[in-house]
Amino acid sequence: MDERLKRQLDFILEIDKEKDIFRQTHLSGHGRAENDAEHAWHMAVMAWLLKDYANDPVDLARTMMMCLIHDIVEIDAGDTYAYDAEGLKTQQAREDAAKERIFSLLPEDQRAELVALFDEFEDWSSPEARFAHALDNLQPLLLNNSNDGSDWKAHGVTARQVYGRQCKTRLGSETLFEVTDGILQEQIRKGNLPEE
Amino acid sequence: MDERLKRQLDFILEIDKEKDIFRQTHLSGHGRAENDAEHAWHMAVMAWLLKDYANDPVDLARTMMMCLIHDIVEIDAGDTYAYDAEGLKTQQAREDAAKERIFSLLPEDQRAELVALFDEFEDWSSPEARFAHALDNLQPLLLNNSNDGSDWKAHGVTARQVYGRQCKTRLGSETLFEVTDGILQEQIRKGNLPEE
Repeated sequence: MDERLKRQLDFILEIDKEKDIFRQTHLSGHGRAENDAEHAWHMAVMAWLLKDYANDPVDLARTMMMCLIHDIVEIDAGDTYAYDAEGLKTQQAREDAAKERIFSLLPEDQRAELVALFDEFEDWSSPEARFAHALDNLQPLLLNNSNDGSDWKAHGVTARQVYGRQCKTRLGSETLFEVTDGILQEQIRKGNLPEE
Repeated sequence: MDERLKRQLDFILEIDKEKDIFRQTHLSGHGRAENDAEHAWHMAVMAWLLKDYANDPVDLARTMMMCLIHDIVEIDAGDTYAYDAEGLKTQQAREDAAKERIFSLLPEDQRAELVALFDEFEDWSSPEARFAHALDNLQPLLLNNSNDGSDWKAHGVTARQVYGRQCKTRLGSETLFEVTDGILQEQIRKGNLPEE
């Protein structure tokens, strides 16, 4: 087998480990914790279905691939919960080291391509990146909404914290932020999400 | 919220159930059984990385979406193991009913679009479909290869059976069939896959 194909297959086998990186979000029906690969799959399907709600036109394949790989660094760096202030302090350094190791398994041109796509997502620097972030926010919100806000309750998260993160959804999609706002207001009304 | 968006979100929540449909394949490192959403995520990443090995040029977004949704019917129909002769007899009827129910949650235009994409995959009727099938074959093979063929051993599967399925990989990618053949020959040599 030639070296290029061997490197691609090594990377493909390595990222199998993303299926063992568990998030704080739980599956609908008050299920088990979700893992990163499942979350990424869900986001990529959403990218296709909801693309017309992006604020600006997006390249669909690039958006989908961005969704699919945006958490690969967590294979080494672990999942950092969106409202974990301590973990957030070291997240960047942990994820930079992981990015270097994992993407370097690939042939150089594909390493560069995926690192650029990953960085574009991290930097919110394109319509695709901003729309992918909207999906990254909305996907766990839909699950948590279906579970009466149990993930927020488990972590004592407030509406102020949730809005602090979710308000950036509007950079990618005003329409999906309206959905978000509607869900959050309803969860606040139901007592599942305290304001402060 | 308007009706179109509501239907899209209903579908998105419904397919969360795909994460609870477990396959016969086990994760690398002799891990737990893999589920359909994880398998689809892996295939879609592979579609991007390995696209140059497709026998004919493929539309990347369509191929990726085909990979992402090709097992959605199993939410109702369950997973049918590739070498389960009894299950295979009723698979078509179970999956047809599921296709009708699940995709009908979507707005009509997207229902029609995804059913067409699903049928195209099932019918092997395009370069995208044939390449997606090559990935559908190769992805579990890579995991099983990394686990010394333990999934074959668990089911008493023979090389003749595996080749019967995997030989169709060459319809989508001659190169990926060469990889497959190399893996299978090595597993036969190691005694992990009996010829008959």
